[in-house]
Amino acid sequence: MADVPTLVEQARQGRPRAVARLISLVEGASPQLREVMAALAPLTGNAYVVGLTGSPGVGKSTSTSALVSAYRRAGKRVGVLAVDPSSPFSGGALLGDRVRMGDHASDPGVYIRSMATRGHLGGLAWAAPQAIRVLDAAGCDVVLVETVGVGQSEVEIASQADTSVVLLAPGMGDGIQAAKAGILEIGDVYVVNKADRDGADATARELNHMLGLGEARSPGDWRPPIVKTVAARGEGVDEVVEALEKHRAWMEERGALTERRRARAAHEVETIAVTALRERIGDLRGDRRLGALAERIVDGTLDPYTAADELVAGVTKS
Amino acid sequence: MADVPTLVEQARQGRPRAVARLISLVEGASPQLREVMAALAPLTGNAYVVGLTGSPGVGKSTSTSALVSAYRRAGKRVGVLAVDPSSPFSGGALLGDRVRMGDHASDPGVYIRSMATRGHLGGLAWAAPQAIRVLDAAGCDVVLVETVGVGQSEVEIASQADTSVVLLAPGMGDGIQAAKAGILEIGDVYVVNKADRDGADATARELNHMLGLGEARSPGDWRPPIVKTVAARGEGVDEVVEALEKHRAWMEERGALTERRRARAAHEVETIAVTALRERIGDLRGDRRLGALAERIVDGTLDPYTAADELVAGVTKS
Repeated sequence: MADVPTLVEQARQGRPRAVARLISLVEGASPQLREVMAALAPLTGNAYVVGLTGSPGVGKSTSTSALVSAYRRAGKRVGVLAVDPSSPFSGGALLGDRVRMGDHASDPGVYIRSMATRGHLGGLAWAAPQAIRVLDAAGCDVVLVETVGVGQSEVEIASQADTSVVLLAPGMGDGIQAAKAGILEIGDVYVVNKADRDGADATARELNHMLGLGEARSPGDWRPPIVKTVAARGEGVDEVVEALEKHRAWMEERGALTERRRARAAHEVETIAVTALRERIGDLRGDRRLGALAERIVDGTLDPYTAADELVAGVTKS
Repeated sequence: MADVPTLVEQARQGRPRAVARLISLVEGASPQLREVMAALAPLTGNAYVVGLTGSPGVGKSTSTSALVSAYRRAGKRVGVLAVDPSSPFSGGALLGDRVRMGDHASDPGVYIRSMATRGHLGGLAWAAPQAIRVLDAAGCDVVLVETVGVGQSEVEIASQADTSVVLLAPGMGDGIQAAKAGILEIGDVYVVNKADRDGADATARELNHMLGLGEARSPGDWRPPIVKTVAARGEGVDEVVEALEKHRAWMEERGALTERRRARAAHEVETIAVTALRERIGDLRGDRRLGALAERIVDGTLDPYTAADELVAGVTKS
């Protein structure tokens, strides 16, 4: 196996196998993870990150594929990261092995990667940004992060993009579900896909209403556009790209892009730090301390907060 | 407002207002939380905790209500904790204010409480077990924890019960969804509700197949039963209670109940400890250290892992 500096150099040159290998190192939390990230840092910051989220059945993969085509026509290099929600217990991605977006599989200007959530909630949160960095360093102009589900961690991923696209489709009774999943609060651009179906106008109207787009806003506020598409036929996709570019320009004008990226980096650092601390806590299992505390809690001779104090005292400065 | 010892004593006597007040203190992470938990500890360990989970539309509330009736007929005191997945951004529970299970609202032997997820993933994990402890201390024989969604955190809650019930309904194309949500791995008892509808037998068969119930198992292994119900008419509900009792007896025979409760307590202590550590990390925001690190990451002069090391070094023993 090539060493990390060689892999990073090869990835920088856009060699697909090196890109794939680096993402695997990142995803698998390999011992070289830190070395990889340190080597990538100076090569990052160029890619524009677009998040796509929406309920199953709205046509996320088709839309992603259509966006890839649009960006390729504009001569951009594109990375696609498809985040699959997998069973929290088995750790396996049910859809991980499917052939995704076969149209672009042979295009050297496109990197496509599926990523499982690795079983635990924290996993997704730290692995996805690192994989985005790999694609960024490999020279992608745009990275599309497609989250397959609509759980909280998927929303979290999507909300960490430079621009978040929320997809809906007509006739899915999406309203309350979308609201519950929190996706009405993260969209910078809304897309009503399958707009050739009955109810597309009603869905757009309902969305317009739920987003309060009819209400007065401060001048200069971003007003999320609602774009109708038929992604399977490529209809409306250029308008989506245009909306994305507008949002990007709007953010750059105000310094909001840098601000958003800093907030994302801060969140990421916190997540990594907390994961590291969690591991230190986990290490205490080795000396049976946690087991002994749990026994006393079940017996009713200790409460969980006092028990937690003991664990925390074991790893922190006084 | 009454002080904590008074509230705990009143809750122990089963006074509903004291129970409600204590759960509010727990849910709101009030300054008295620790005092409350310490006072409750010796009063806990009597309630049997049953988790109920399943996709929207399978009839969870109706099933919960029917189970409450069944337990009440058997003279048991019952607590119901309905965990609502709320927007990760607004922190508000969309369904929190609805009138739940009106049939039992006036029964002094039943406590019903809705609980929001408090916006962030960690919140749910620590608040629900504490609320269960309040209901336990208040003399509930059974606590039913109904999770309204099927996200990972809901699965986590349900899997922390003494016995987990997974509900399905016919004709919902549930199979793959259930598998993705991980609920096929947490059920001790499976219920196919709305069994008077077409497709109930097919759903039960599919479930039987997916669970591998036809396969050989080690003697003594728990074989999750599949019970058909029409909860709205109370049909099959006694069979569910019977299945729950069987699972309890099976676990008690093997010491598995104590083991499961200890594992749950250990997990809970870890969660509280990690939350406390997360707060310490969060405190570092105050001195702008995190902001400065994030700035350097966006500039590409620092990677997130090295940045996290600095944060961790700030709070831990060397």
